[in-house]
Amino acid sequence: MDLIEQLNWRYATKKMDPARAVPQDKVERILEAVRLTPTSSGLQPFELIVITNAALREQIKAIARGQGQVADCSHLVVFAAWDDYTPERINLMFDISIAVRGSTNEGWENYRKHLLASYPPRGPEVNFQHTAKQAYIGLGVAMAAAALESVDSTPMEGFDQDALDQLLNLRARGLKSLVILPLGYREADKDWLVNLKKVRRPREQFITEIK
Amino acid sequence: MDLIEQLNWRYATKKMDPARAVPQDKVERILEAVRLTPTSSGLQPFELIVITNAALREQIKAIARGQGQVADCSHLVVFAAWDDYTPERINLMFDISIAVRGSTNEGWENYRKHLLASYPPRGPEVNFQHTAKQAYIGLGVAMAAAALESVDSTPMEGFDQDALDQLLNLRARGLKSLVILPLGYREADKDWLVNLKKVRRPREQFITEIK
Repeated sequence: MDLIEQLNWRYATKKMDPARAVPQDKVERILEAVRLTPTSSGLQPFELIVITNAALREQIKAIARGQGQVADCSHLVVFAAWDDYTPERINLMFDISIAVRGSTNEGWENYRKHLLASYPPRGPEVNFQHTAKQAYIGLGVAMAAAALESVDSTPMEGFDQDALDQLLNLRARGLKSLVILPLGYREADKDWLVNLKKVRRPREQFITEIK
Repeated sequence: MDLIEQLNWRYATKKMDPARAVPQDKVERILEAVRLTPTSSGLQPFELIVITNAALREQIKAIARGQGQVADCSHLVVFAAWDDYTPERINLMFDISIAVRGSTNEGWENYRKHLLASYPPRGPEVNFQHTAKQAYIGLGVAMAAAALESVDSTPMEGFDQDALDQLLNLRARGLKSLVILPLGYREADKDWLVNLKKVRRPREQFITEIK
């Protein structure tokens, strides 16, 4: 599959086919791509909640401006970022790293100390702005991965974040929802957007080269 | 190319080979993938600055903690987000859309009015937080695209954003730099990270399923 071709194929699907579920192996590859997504200092400061439960998706649709894709998709992926960088979370990632790599060294431990000394004191507001951006790297990778699987995806920020956090009990887990991504298949004959041309600024208005 | 395989292949390259440039056709496909990246309301609230100029990259290295990839890469991509959502910028994207699609309609014009009424009054601080996240979607797509081209990329937030904005005169263009992405090729025998295992939280610590 060619990425450019597939990015041109994809669009923010407005009508998904409730009768067509995304095969689990495709979903797994999309999720694995997000898990492999690079993040700042490798901290992966976000989590995914993948909802197939239909009743729950109906409840989420109600707090997402009634957008039908939330119910018509087969898998609803919630991107939720850490509400803060805590020492526990930073230490967890360094400890996993040592376990995976089988050793540590002074440079690595100094880096841990640097993050422990600098991140937590910045406070949750600054830190959540940072964790949220890392989650959006994952969102980009998820949409690229979905496109490569010929799976439709529609990123949505238009929902009540607080209500979703409450519904999924995210705050108790130190998470805040940012964006939801229904995965499914377009129902083309009922989608007003499917045949409209993709709109992007031309290259010269988007890219500056300094040679 | 398989995305999962290539995401496992990639890593935050610490030493790039200054003698090996990324072929321009690969660079173009990576940039085109970012241009095609989905963003909130399709506003694409960021730009890319692609720097091949060696002297300028040396200057940037000096304000990027001396990180060698900035000079050793062949293409340095700067992700710079809009400093605000202004009526001009919102109108520009709607006007491009009408030009590309050849027509408009009442729903589309109501959406324009909605964004014009809601985004600019939020002020530059809230808006920049939003534009920055959109740029990070592009960063995710860029890194996926680079990996699929077997091109190394190293995302870096560790530089003096204000100094880079000044050096590139970004503020006068209503842009603020966020992250830089050197594109190049690993010099494996000089890279301490190349042979270390990739570290990610296991699936069960990253993904929750609600069935």
